[in-house]
Amino acid sequence: MKPQFERRLAILRNNMLDAGQDALLIFSLDNLRYLINYSGEAAYGIVTQCGAYLITDYRFLEQAQQECVNGKIDCQIICRDRDRQTLGAVINGVLKRAQAHRIVFEHEYISVSMWQAICIDNPGLVFTPAQAMLDSQRKIKDEWEIAQIRQAAAISDSALAILLPQLKLGVSEREMALELDYQMQRLGSEGISFTTILGFGERSALPHCIPSARRLQEGDLIVIDFGAVINGYRSDMTRSFVAGEADARQQAMFDTVYAAQSAALASLHAGLAAHDADAAANAILKASEFAAYAGLGLGHGLGIKLHEQPFMGPHCQDILQTNYVVTIEPGIYIPGYGGIRLEDDVQITPDGYIALSHAPKQFEVAI
Amino acid sequence: MKPQFERRLAILRNNMLDAGQDALLIFSLDNLRYLINYSGEAAYGIVTQCGAYLITDYRFLEQAQQECVNGKIDCQIICRDRDRQTLGAVINGVLKRAQAHRIVFEHEYISVSMWQAICIDNPGLVFTPAQAMLDSQRKIKDEWEIAQIRQAAAISDSALAILLPQLKLGVSEREMALELDYQMQRLGSEGISFTTILGFGERSALPHCIPSARRLQEGDLIVIDFGAVINGYRSDMTRSFVAGEADARQQAMFDTVYAAQSAALASLHAGLAAHDADAAANAILKASEFAAYAGLGLGHGLGIKLHEQPFMGPHCQDILQTNYVVTIEPGIYIPGYGGIRLEDDVQITPDGYIALSHAPKQFEVAI
Repeated sequence: MKPQFERRLAILRNNMLDAGQDALLIFSLDNLRYLINYSGEAAYGIVTQCGAYLITDYRFLEQAQQECVNGKIDCQIICRDRDRQTLGAVINGVLKRAQAHRIVFEHEYISVSMWQAICIDNPGLVFTPAQAMLDSQRKIKDEWEIAQIRQAAAISDSALAILLPQLKLGVSEREMALELDYQMQRLGSEGISFTTILGFGERSALPHCIPSARRLQEGDLIVIDFGAVINGYRSDMTRSFVAGEADARQQAMFDTVYAAQSAALASLHAGLAAHDADAAANAILKASEFAAYAGLGLGHGLGIKLHEQPFMGPHCQDILQTNYVVTIEPGIYIPGYGGIRLEDDVQITPDGYIALSHAPKQFEVAI
Repeated sequence: MKPQFERRLAILRNNMLDAGQDALLIFSLDNLRYLINYSGEAAYGIVTQCGAYLITDYRFLEQAQQECVNGKIDCQIICRDRDRQTLGAVINGVLKRAQAHRIVFEHEYISVSMWQAICIDNPGLVFTPAQAMLDSQRKIKDEWEIAQIRQAAAISDSALAILLPQLKLGVSEREMALELDYQMQRLGSEGISFTTILGFGERSALPHCIPSARRLQEGDLIVIDFGAVINGYRSDMTRSFVAGEADARQQAMFDTVYAAQSAALASLHAGLAAHDADAAANAILKASEFAAYAGLGLGHGLGIKLHEQPFMGPHCQDILQTNYVVTIEPGIYIPGYGGIRLEDDVQITPDGYIALSHAPKQFEVAI
């Protein structure tokens, strides 16, 4: 595992050098996982040009040693006695030893109260908010990261294949979501990527439908949006179905979303403006009879976080690069009637994309 | 549902009046659930003497209307267009209309970056950190809250009874944790209270053991720490077992923990200093041959959050009051060998306590 973490730390240190920064205080657990392989809780990091430090306490010491040291990462673990040492005092010690003066901190990931306490223990030091340097660095995935997302997506594919024959008249949204979550974990997923969205009938129009006791009826639209987790990396896929035979309106909705997703996928390649991919899908949605019900935003980056940069909407300024991993998920949502969304995870390549999720896009399911 | 929320808001407003506060900015989702029944995400609250406001966006508007209005709560929903209105500007509008000047905010639940942005939009106003007023108020549970925790605890009891016959030689920690999580949700739990802790053999000594591929062997100690969720309220129970017949040392460990927990439970009543309950358990642990391996802290409050006030350790200054709900969970942890912990959820009464969790404390399981 070591080379990829060395590479990530090297990129970060180069960026810090360019920005004239001596030290970065890391308060995001996602970034600790990304930089030094730590997957526990209650920990804080400091990166300087010469060192990487993880501050935690006895509860997570063993885990930190297993994950972040043991020949894997060049990282020093600091076990804080929480009854005797404030976090600010420990940070002060590291920064003084490192002779760091130009210090930035992850202001998006620390509370006002914790930050005030840290500042009290560091009266002589000036801290500047870090401008999401790591968010930007994390957009381009390395081969190992892509392999984890691919494996998570494959588990989602398999779990859905197990679920589909169980979608019968009278099952509830909650039962089906639980079954899907259970099957993903049986197949090796570490928990679930996010709370599974699963809606029947008119509830399929809710973009964040929380599974309820609503039972499946003939003719219901069905939206299932879910994902697995492998080594902290997430998948995120949506499939839409109709319970039994589609009527003309439902089929037209599905065909429109399918065409919109296909157009967006066909447009993808490194160098494309993200908003142009959004526009490719949107042109089809807006030209359809469902224009008034088109969803907002084409998709998002995917990795350790479910929603990462780039956010692929009409206002996105990002240019897609090779080995971005993003979701492509156009949808139509008709309040009180129902919705359809199709979502896949893709890796951007110089000439196009590689699909990471593969579940078939059949629409009608036998009930 | 309305009366309990009215009561909670009335207590909060009284406390604010006593402290000379015109408005409280709420950034904790737990507190939004507690005060106005909101269980979604991406929302912020403002409470004044005359009003309660929930600021969210179109994604959660329908949920907010169902949960927080519709005759349930006297709350006004503000749907923010995130492309056109900053959160700070919306907050400013509410505070101005309410003519609020002495304003406090939940500084533990908002990031430095979000808070800086809010302050930019409110140049004339002075905000003071709120000193965890709601944490304190939430310690005493009302009957409805206790009923939810009781139901969550009953689900945990039942799920464990289903799991126990499956604890056979060769099963893995991960398989058993997944099965337990699945059974709790089949029984009606909304997700799981926290990541189930389940450790075999030497891994049972890890206080936060993440279930692994480790398989059950004869003579292994087994620790299972888990909980269910009902209407947002959590249970938290631990049982310890041995796979097959206990040897003398294992039996002595179990008997010691059992006696320590019994002593702590017997000491409970409203008016007792929390640290005296801790001392009751600790006296037995420290007098035993396992003194060097006794865990720290007797338990914690339990409710919408898994770990709430009071934190029942030797330094706790809290006096137990009627209708506190706390865990009582002494343990012995011998690194490299194994651990035993027993944990129950109890409601404090004037004369003692009422147990909310009831799973038997059998030690040996047939394998």
